[in-house]
Amino acid sequence: MDLATVIGMAGAIVLVTGAISLGTSPLVFLDLVSFLIVVGGSLMVVLSQLRFSECRMALRAATRAFRNSLPSTSSTIEEVLEISMLARKSGSFLVLENFEASSRYLKLGLQMLADGASAETLKEVLDKERLMTFDRNQAGARAFTLLGDVAPAMGMIGTLIGLVQMLSNMDDPSTIGSAMAIALLTTLYGVLIANVIAKPIAEKLNARMQQQERLQALWTDALLAIQQNKNPRIVEQMLMAYLPDEVRDRRIASRTEASAEVVQEESNA
Amino acid sequence: MDLATVIGMAGAIVLVTGAISLGTSPLVFLDLVSFLIVVGGSLMVVLSQLRFSECRMALRAATRAFRNSLPSTSSTIEEVLEISMLARKSGSFLVLENFEASSRYLKLGLQMLADGASAETLKEVLDKERLMTFDRNQAGARAFTLLGDVAPAMGMIGTLIGLVQMLSNMDDPSTIGSAMAIALLTTLYGVLIANVIAKPIAEKLNARMQQQERLQALWTDALLAIQQNKNPRIVEQMLMAYLPDEVRDRRIASRTEASAEVVQEESNA
Amino acid sequence: MDLATVIGMAGAIVLVTGAISLGTSPLVFLDLVSFLIVVGGSLMVVLSQLRFSECRMALRAATRAFRNSLPSTSSTIEEVLEISMLARKSGSFLVLENFEASSRYLKLGLQMLADGASAETLKEVLDKERLMTFDRNQAGARAFTLLGDVAPAMGMIGTLIGLVQMLSNMDDPSTIGSAMAIALLTTLYGVLIANVIAKPIAEKLNARMQQQERLQALWTDALLAIQQNKNPRIVEQMLMAYLPDEVRDRRIASRTEASAEVVQEESNA
Amino acid sequence: MDLATVIGMAGAIVLVTGAISLGTSPLVFLDLVSFLIVVGGSLMVVLSQLRFSECRMALRAATRAFRNSLPSTSSTIEEVLEISMLARKSGSFLVLENFEASSRYLKLGLQMLADGASAETLKEVLDKERLMTFDRNQAGARAFTLLGDVAPAMGMIGTLIGLVQMLSNMDDPSTIGSAMAIALLTTLYGVLIANVIAKPIAEKLNARMQQQERLQALWTDALLAIQQNKNPRIVEQMLMAYLPDEVRDRRIASRTEASAEVVQEESNA
Amino acid sequence: MDLATVIGMAGAIVLVTGAISLGTSPLVFLDLVSFLIVVGGSLMVVLSQLRFSECRMALRAATRAFRNSLPSTSSTIEEVLEISMLARKSGSFLVLENFEASSRYLKLGLQMLADGASAETLKEVLDKERLMTFDRNQAGARAFTLLGDVAPAMGMIGTLIGLVQMLSNMDDPSTIGSAMAIALLTTLYGVLIANVIAKPIAEKLNARMQQQERLQALWTDALLAIQQNKNPRIVEQMLMAYLPDEVRDRRIASRTEASAEVVQEESNA
Repeated sequence: MDLATVIGMAGAIVLVTGAISLGTSPLVFLDLVSFLIVVGGSLMVVLSQLRFSECRMALRAATRAFRNSLPSTSSTIEEVLEISMLARKSGSFLVLENFEASSRYLKLGLQMLADGASAETLKEVLDKERLMTFDRNQAGARAFTLLGDVAPAMGMIGTLIGLVQMLSNMDDPSTIGSAMAIALLTTLYGVLIANVIAKPIAEKLNARMQQQERLQALWTDALLAIQQNKNPRIVEQMLMAYLPDEVRDRRIASRTEASAEVVQEESNA
Repeated sequence: MDLATVIGMAGAIVLVTGAISLGTSPLVFLDLVSFLIVVGGSLMVVLSQLRFSECRMALRAATRAFRNSLPSTSSTIEEVLEISMLARKSGSFLVLENFEASSRYLKLGLQMLADGASAETLKEVLDKERLMTFDRNQAGARAFTLLGDVAPAMGMIGTLIGLVQMLSNMDDPSTIGSAMAIALLTTLYGVLIANVIAKPIAEKLNARMQQQERLQALWTDALLAIQQNKNPRIVEQMLMAYLPDEVRDRRIASRTEASAEVVQEESNA
Repeated sequence: MDLATVIGMAGAIVLVTGAISLGTSPLVFLDLVSFLIVVGGSLMVVLSQLRFSECRMALRAATRAFRNSLPSTSSTIEEVLEISMLARKSGSFLVLENFEASSRYLKLGLQMLADGASAETLKEVLDKERLMTFDRNQAGARAFTLLGDVAPAMGMIGTLIGLVQMLSNMDDPSTIGSAMAIALLTTLYGVLIANVIAKPIAEKLNARMQQQERLQALWTDALLAIQQNKNPRIVEQMLMAYLPDEVRDRRIASRTEASAEVVQEESNA
Repeated sequence: MDLATVIGMAGAIVLVTGAISLGTSPLVFLDLVSFLIVVGGSLMVVLSQLRFSECRMALRAATRAFRNSLPSTSSTIEEVLEISMLARKSGSFLVLENFEASSRYLKLGLQMLADGASAETLKEVLDKERLMTFDRNQAGARAFTLLGDVAPAMGMIGTLIGLVQMLSNMDDPSTIGSAMAIALLTTLYGVLIANVIAKPIAEKLNARMQQQERLQALWTDALLAIQQNKNPRIVEQMLMAYLPDEVRDRRIASRTEASAEVVQEESNA
Repeated sequence: MDLATVIGMAGAIVLVTGAISLGTSPLVFLDLVSFLIVVGGSLMVVLSQLRFSECRMALRAATRAFRNSLPSTSSTIEEVLEISMLARKSGSFLVLENFEASSRYLKLGLQMLADGASAETLKEVLDKERLMTFDRNQAGARAFTLLGDVAPAMGMIGTLIGLVQMLSNMDDPSTIGSAMAIALLTTLYGVLIANVIAKPIAEKLNARMQQQERLQALWTDALLAIQQNKNPRIVEQMLMAYLPDEVRDRRIASRTEASAEVVQEESNA
């Protein structure tokens, strides 16, 4: 989502390649056949477990892991409170139809509010939407989880092939060392791909998925409260639970003012 | 389901056999006893955990994994909307009995609609049907999951037998290398079978199972909405949650037309 | 349940002993101390995790795994439909008390029907019964799951003991090979016991447990339907979900006749 | 709970020490530093994951694993039926306050009955009590589960330290064997502690926990039935589900008499 | 939470370093490149799976693991009973607004009571609060769980790099020993970091999380009881379930007095 993923992954690769180049023979770590067995083989095995449409989803998901496109919880609460007060002031949900919502999910909910959907229908449609978003995101993360499982196995297969070849040709003892070094390369490749690339991306996508789900839960809660014409102050109090304690404390000043304004509006009504 | 499984599995096997044939002694990788211990032994152990009827199911399931027989979500929604409008136009569910549904599950639901089943009965029967389909599919996938677990263990057993034989006959040191190469072969066979064949098929069947369940959830939702005489536009909006965002955007044009037509029909009613 | 377990387990053992006897020194695979450590030690550790009553249950469960005593789903449905029609014809549940039910569970349900139990009580007692059967079966399967976990660990302990003994007595290099061969034997024993005997039996008992639970669910569904005087045709349609598609198709002919008969009876009533 | 735990654990230790003392150099298996690293280190790491109060709980729980203090299901049902008839005869729950119940949980429930608590309150308080007992027991079992995970890791750490020390001091090849023997000792200690001591106790405590929970479920069911003045015969039938089939059959004779007595009492009332 | 974590972790480190310094060459255990690969690489990989905000949370969570800031269950019950009696005496919830509650969660609940929130709203807001606290704590513990998974993998990567370097440069056999010693160092570092530092902290944070959740459950129960004007004696009886049996027995004397006082107050009312 933010720089952390890029910095972390690049840093780990720099550290590993640094340790390799400090040694006496860095070139021995490059071997085309080993590379093909592990990278090609792993991608093939992962492909065999997906449909083509899921492969496209996985690639899109991977690029998403490096971008920070989800709005923060704070700005989301601000947006939702703005909507809540807008609905209160205008006295009708029709005005919400043209609100420039920051997310497709919120836009769908506002459209339904404007269409006069009942609380029950609203909850049902939004819950289904949430479940399905989760489902699709999961399909994206699955490809990288599979890659993280398959790569070490392909590395082990490569090493076993190398060992069998070496053991059945031990006439020249001087070649044993380098033959075994090459045999171990595939295991190294497999473990590196799994732990430095595949698993972090899968984990990142899973975390992003949960964060998105939490935002959608927040939006659903807020939309239901707005639909029931709840006081924006109560809406805000409810949404505060989504914020960590520190952020909450910082908000208190602004909240006091905002709620004062609302209370005044209340007494005028 | 589609070409991906065939291409992926074939590609992985080509890469591994390629790496083997590039070596100096590809024939050393073929050993009948090792093959019998791993393949025969694994199949026997898997057989011991199933009933014969489950073995037949597993074979049928395996062939299913290579065929793409599940309808796409888009075409399923089209079909369901067609049914929805048909029911609306005719004003009776009796016409649904003769609808050529693309799946046995949908056909069962339409039959029940035509029979005048209540929403509750409809949901109950379809839910049980869904659960049982899941149950049967799971039995099919289970055989391959078991094979993926057993094959590496049988490989390890073969290697241990080979090592014990080699270690108790070390009179001629020149044979140690080749004896150990043969001992390692069973481990290689076991890891290959598990990771390139058994686990991908099991995983594929599991994914297919989930996809089928999602389609059945969609059909149940749609049938319940039709039973309640819901507006096809609302039915469509509800079903849109099952589509990824990109596909949904592409549908908007056609939806606008369709819904316009329905709205007109509504106002005429 | 059927021959598959016996054939599979015997076949796997024949293949492994075959591979051993093909080697030059099959007698080296027999070692009493290694056998005692792995088999005796594993049984002792499993015993320490059970109560004596659970050991008896586990032995009874193991013999059950090799017998095929659960009725088939098809014959169960036949029996239940017979009961359903019997109750319909006699117009009273009292006649069910003397029905020769094929299982204790069904007998309990019929007794309760004859006693005039309410639907709620019937469901409550049968659900508790089902839960408790599951609980007891699980205790049986648990012993073999434990054995499957402990045996490889005891094998590893034996190998470590052998290695330490060998390494601290390396004066005569000619004995190293055979000492190490013996050290590896315990690992071989442990992996064999776990993968060829303990895990398959545990898995089989678990599958049998699930099958029994599914039958009990079917019986509960059927008894509740009978208690509510549901039409046998509807009862049958409901129970059809428990059958695979192929079996269901084969039943259609007979069902058509049976339902015709019932419908006629209905119109007479 | 009964002798099985003591016999099993002692038997496993006797078998392992027997195998060690049969070898040529049993004294090589004793090494103080290795012992301190594995036993001391594991206990320290386990301690770091607990609070002191949890350590006390774990020790108390361990002693409990070797005692058989839970009443049997049969005697529990007898006791509960006695209470049921007592309440029926006296026509008031006040008499239950002085009943000498065999467990604290049952005593709490009887006290609440005597206090005239409603069914709802009774269920709520007893369910919370049950949950909390489970929670506390789990904390006890957790310490041994942690020990079972940490001990092999500490063993591996010890072996790695030994290997590094040996490899960096290979001037005298004659010491390599014994140095490696000592390095392997920590792995042996770790695997032994985990598999022969820690995991069996953890597993035993978990089983005991489940058994206790089942008894509490039985007591709750019985107390609720008594509170609703249910016929002792129905109470007994309900509780029969907690007994295995064999025990149930043996009870039938006595049950027939008991129920006859109750039925007579019924007709008098 | 208390001294146990500090003592345990320090003790384990002292034992390991002691075992190292008793050996002949303690300095061989320090290697900068190995350290950088394992510690640096692991931190980088963990960083790549988090957002910066989660890193801050993880560090704060780690310091929390060494402090004992959660109130004990006993003192929490005392505080809650004090509140219960205060509300009873004043006859109004307004007085609760100024109560100096020991936790933010309890303060939120008291504020809502004083604001006259309904039982339903109270439960809803507090449940959401509880869920979100759990969510945030989990994010903190996740970083250490990730570290515990990644560190051994980075150790294995370092060892594989060292082995490949050693095997491709075997011209001078005298260096093989020390090269392999260094290669093994990264595995040792990885296993140490995972088992002595990362996993214990993660486990400790998880346990603390559960304890906090239990306290929040207790507060919610108590606040709901106070809102319904329940008798403090009943409130106390309900809360007793949260205490272990021993602590409960010790409380009986004080409870008797307290309840006597309440009963008297009751009869006066």
